[in-house]
Amino acid sequence: MQQHDRVLVDFRTSDDAGVYKWDEATALVQTVDFFTPIVDDPYVFGQIAAANALSDVYAMGARPLTALAVAAFPQEAVDDGIVADVFRGGCDKLREAAVALLGGHTVQDREIKFGYAVTGIVHPARVLTNAGARPGDAVVLTKPIGTGVIATAIKYQRAPQAAIDAAVAAMVTLNRAAAEVLQGLPAGVVRACTDVTGFGLIGHAEEVANASGVTVRIEAASVPLLRGALELVRRNRSGGLGTNEAFFKTGVRLETSVDEDLLALLYDPQTSGGLLVTADPARATDLLSALVGAGVAGVRIGTVLPRSDAAVIAA
Amino acid sequence: MQQHDRVLVDFRTSDDAGVYKWDEATALVQTVDFFTPIVDDPYVFGQIAAANALSDVYAMGARPLTALAVAAFPQEAVDDGIVADVFRGGCDKLREAAVALLGGHTVQDREIKFGYAVTGIVHPARVLTNAGARPGDAVVLTKPIGTGVIATAIKYQRAPQAAIDAAVAAMVTLNRAAAEVLQGLPAGVVRACTDVTGFGLIGHAEEVANASGVTVRIEAASVPLLRGALELVRRNRSGGLGTNEAFFKTGVRLETSVDEDLLALLYDPQTSGGLLVTADPARATDLLSALVGAGVAGVRIGTVLPRSDAAVIAA
Repeated sequence: MQQHDRVLVDFRTSDDAGVYKWDEATALVQTVDFFTPIVDDPYVFGQIAAANALSDVYAMGARPLTALAVAAFPQEAVDDGIVADVFRGGCDKLREAAVALLGGHTVQDREIKFGYAVTGIVHPARVLTNAGARPGDAVVLTKPIGTGVIATAIKYQRAPQAAIDAAVAAMVTLNRAAAEVLQGLPAGVVRACTDVTGFGLIGHAEEVANASGVTVRIEAASVPLLRGALELVRRNRSGGLGTNEAFFKTGVRLETSVDEDLLALLYDPQTSGGLLVTADPARATDLLSALVGAGVAGVRIGTVLPRSDAAVIAA
Repeated sequence: MQQHDRVLVDFRTSDDAGVYKWDEATALVQTVDFFTPIVDDPYVFGQIAAANALSDVYAMGARPLTALAVAAFPQEAVDDGIVADVFRGGCDKLREAAVALLGGHTVQDREIKFGYAVTGIVHPARVLTNAGARPGDAVVLTKPIGTGVIATAIKYQRAPQAAIDAAVAAMVTLNRAAAEVLQGLPAGVVRACTDVTGFGLIGHAEEVANASGVTVRIEAASVPLLRGALELVRRNRSGGLGTNEAFFKTGVRLETSVDEDLLALLYDPQTSGGLLVTADPARATDLLSALVGAGVAGVRIGTVLPRSDAAVIAA
């Protein structure tokens, strides 16, 4: 097999991770992600960074095996024990995911950055991508949204504690249980999968729509929201949200009058967001039951339609 | 097999990369490295960053397969086309190494940082580590040293062009040909291998010595030097060199009078340095001939001795 035949998915698509065919039964799924702190507690930040990096592997239908730490820290953060706490949070989350930390690289920097390169495995025929959604599919989301506006409020010290707690609980939750449910269903039930991260729910839904040649209809009122997120977005639409809105709104058609703040949240960039799944509508109830049975609050938020003028319809 | 049984080498040793046992015949070798520019030309910097990251995989006796880019750039570097040149240099070097770029992550930063997370494969029984050197082994180095002092001189704009050219030629050279020679020899000929990077020749020799329970004797006059390096080290012993000397000199015994500047160079931190190999002395000539045949200027620079009070003897 030539090297280029082995690359099933690479950086040229908008998928969550690259896929390299190892043999007929096995493909490597690889991704790297790192970012600056979005919460004040370094241990929690480490957990979020790990859950977020692992998520791209889960979103491809794969099982993560190994991780390498990618870190940048100022010397003060080392001296204050902050770095140790960040690594400890990351390690604990990797352990929960049964992922082996093989190494890493740290550089001195003025601001903290932390994350992981993660490698997982999947059967080449069971890789989940943006590209498999079909008209009629049920659209399911496995975590509430709103981490972006809450992280911004944390930065400006005006986030209510209940909102912080809700966002942290969502962000430190691995997408492992959700991914295991998807992997456990018969082949063909799950048609497309991605995780909701920097582009926000609408941005990632557009990617699925464009890769699959369909339109994704989102029932805005069905989308689960983190506690406090709607109140916070009324007061501040942070940088990432506005950038997403400017970039993705041309692909969106509003079918009915959608509350302006709720619509804004659909553009909110997420960290360690949930899986956005499209599935055979005849099996959607099985999927939702299996998710609930695994402790995942999966919610049906829409339906896949034949491609129309818009990539996404918000209703 | 339990997860921890699969980890053959991890971050707790001083090896070049982590090793994860896939099955009886295959182990994954993984490493990540990235750093700030050490040359002025962004295309060349990209090449060096790739050659340097791949080197850790070669140093473990493995063949690299995939890479993920790890990048941080200020917006101006994007606008000026510098980022594109860095990526192009890296891609060209990955292509030369037949390594597939699967993806990557880029963040905004005040200064440029660039590198890769690399994954390779090796037979679990053919993993090369710091730990296999035996008394009597020949010690071989496959690239000249001095990139640290030359990079510092470049930064202060007083590097002679001949020194820059020599350092760049060495740093962009993949350790692939050298690694393929090592892999092509019968099992047991090569006893230990590492690449010479940030800790300098003496630092990495100490790691081999301590991991193997031996003493490494280096004939300082035999160590190949980059053109101009000895002249530059006379004028300036940069930060990294001094740090290495302070940290590693307690492990060193001088057997004869070694020229002070030459000794300093043995502590010079290298970027994309050569492989430091210890090999069965009965086969050392075969090894050196095979290296030369593959276009690698491998040089015997010393001998492994039974462990004495010092980890390294400089003679």
